[in-house]
Amino acid sequence: MNQETDLEKGFEALRQGKFILVYDNDDREGEIDMIIASEFVTPKSIATMRNDAGGLICNCISSKFCDEINLPFMVDIMAAATEKYPNLAELAPNDIPYDERSSFSIWVNHRKSFTGVTDHDRAMTISEMAKMFKDGKFDEFGKTFRSPGHVCLLRGAVDTVKNRRGHTEIGLAMCEMAGVTPVCVVCEMMDGETGQATSFDDAKKYAEENDLVLLRGNDIIKKYLEEY
Amino acid sequence: MNQETDLEKGFEALRQGKFILVYDNDDREGEIDMIIASEFVTPKSIATMRNDAGGLICNCISSKFCDEINLPFMVDIMAAATEKYPNLAELAPNDIPYDERSSFSIWVNHRKSFTGVTDHDRAMTISEMAKMFKDGKFDEFGKTFRSPGHVCLLRGAVDTVKNRRGHTEIGLAMCEMAGVTPVCVVCEMMDGETGQATSFDDAKKYAEENDLVLLRGNDIIKKYLEEY
Repeated sequence: MNQETDLEKGFEALRQGKFILVYDNDDREGEIDMIIASEFVTPKSIATMRNDAGGLICNCISSKFCDEINLPFMVDIMAAATEKYPNLAELAPNDIPYDERSSFSIWVNHRKSFTGVTDHDRAMTISEMAKMFKDGKFDEFGKTFRSPGHVCLLRGAVDTVKNRRGHTEIGLAMCEMAGVTPVCVVCEMMDGETGQATSFDDAKKYAEENDLVLLRGNDIIKKYLEEY
Repeated sequence: MNQETDLEKGFEALRQGKFILVYDNDDREGEIDMIIASEFVTPKSIATMRNDAGGLICNCISSKFCDEINLPFMVDIMAAATEKYPNLAELAPNDIPYDERSSFSIWVNHRKSFTGVTDHDRAMTISEMAKMFKDGKFDEFGKTFRSPGHVCLLRGAVDTVKNRRGHTEIGLAMCEMAGVTPVCVVCEMMDGETGQATSFDDAKKYAEENDLVLLRGNDIIKKYLEEY
């Protein structure tokens, strides 16, 4: 099967609310993430990510949407808090081995959630946030969500993969090309046997068994840079 | 089996680096957490929590240790950052249904971790932090860990269960009574079938199958208030 067909299958999977698997690159995290468009996330999607991936369940938001709600990076929040808590400066993430910066922002719960961590609650937090953005109801952010909480928000770089090539940007670029709301969940696939990330071969096997598309980040980035 | 015997078994399990299961209470989260003393955490412990619990893998730290490293609550960090980011104030967690406040602090990675999310990396972050506290090397916090990261730190209330009755404080009270370093991991048990927290009966079955002690938070709190 050629790359173009695989990419088209990936776009269609996202539009249908299915997972895609994406390997970033050998020279980066060397990691496979399960990715799904947030507007379609259900409690079963959360259970699948818990059981079959095992990483953090993070909601990636496009740079434009983040600007609409003035959502800062966590590193900027911590920097702003250093006047009051000077020792936070010592924790600065200035030595990330695979990138210059992380895309972490704040952690949130939907205000109608109970503990915030159940499959039901996390699915509500994630899908309702995508719907808020889709409907342009940006002024409802603080009314609808509280922080801290149990769902991590990741802030996508400006122009996605043109400026950073993490799973956050690769997932958001896929959403843009697929024509779905650019809010997506990423969850890293873990291997309990090795204690490391799931290998490409194991992910390929999982994709085949579960009829999922497995894509390489570089192919997605190439396509995006050609067309956008 | 009486409560006293169960509690003693729980103390011994913690000392041996085994998991205990703790139900908080019907009038609180109504939730079972897997709990383990952080100094004994291995990559296999992380895999077990991912596979059998499924909630957030959080490192609870005693109030005294937090004071030694000046670790604030996340809600205080966000409040301190509102001068620069005023909209963060709108996200205030003033409507948590089961408590007045959350114990969330910052998220960290060990600086020697790679992505920070693998079983290997999270185990290193958690166990090395417990060892740092145990050895009283408080000035190494910012040298050894970066933030943001993939392991959530929870700040225990002063005098643990005397001031708050969450899993954070119940776990730390258990550590104190068991005589292990008061740094422990808590992870909420989820039920993929219902989308809600694992029920007491299902946790009881899991405890029996895996030879683990299942305790009720109220029995732990009662014991602590009697003796401390």
